[in-house]
Amino acid sequence: MLRRAALDRWGHGDPQGFLDIYAPEITYFDVATDSRIDGHSAMTGYYRPIRGKIRIAHYEMIAPKVQRHGDVAVLTYNLHDEAVQPDGKQLTMSWNSTSVYARLHGEWMVIHSHWSLTAPPCLRRTM
Amino acid sequence: MLRRAALDRWGHGDPQGFLDIYAPEITYFDVATDSRIDGHSAMTGYYRPIRGKIRIAHYEMIAPKVQRHGDVAVLTYNLHDEAVQPDGKQLTMSWNSTSVYARLHGEWMVIHSHWSLTAPPCLRRTM
Repeated sequence: MLRRAALDRWGHGDPQGFLDIYAPEITYFDVATDSRIDGHSAMTGYYRPIRGKIRIAHYEMIAPKVQRHGDVAVLTYNLHDEAVQPDGKQLTMSWNSTSVYARLHGEWMVIHSHWSLTAPPCLRRTM
Repeated sequence: MLRRAALDRWGHGDPQGFLDIYAPEITYFDVATDSRIDGHSAMTGYYRPIRGKIRIAHYEMIAPKVQRHGDVAVLTYNLHDEAVQPDGKQLTMSWNSTSVYARLHGEWMVIHSHWSLTAPPCLRRTM
């Protein structure tokens, strides 16, 4: 539920839903990062320029799965979303999503997140 | 050390080094997966066609980091490698790598792995 709330806020251009559930030690990769981003304040800075610029009309989490081991849980899913471009056109995108949660001081926080696009055609020949 | 041994074997076309450290519950994403792959036998099947086809001349792990919480550890790093193409040409690639290890019956096994390319130019405008 926390995850859906964060995704909903993200879809309205508000990264704060994710920042609220990131632990101080968060490590992060996505399709635009030049190297791993380490730590909550670095993530706040990373999201700042895109605040207000993202619009997701619709998203669907595919086969979310949780692998829990004690106070750590790995949440993985594929995500299909419809991003609204500045010109109003919609772009369908498919993502691979990994989030690792740890229970810190009684609260589940994200200690690592990794986003990538699912089998993008331009990368088909790279492996 | 286990990780380097697996990477070394991978670079010689042998995925068995990774298969040996994947737990039965392994979940997996990379740049070619159409959706998350679940379970060790699915991974064995997934790697079968590329067995013997990969040649990595050189690789470098950049800033490996371990976030350990009890019996779970998240290993992340960027990887630069020089893949040897079938025509002998070398192709430099940069990866984002996430591996989640859990201590199962006293042994550290990989329960989740996510590979993506670092900021590929063809994806620069997608976020």
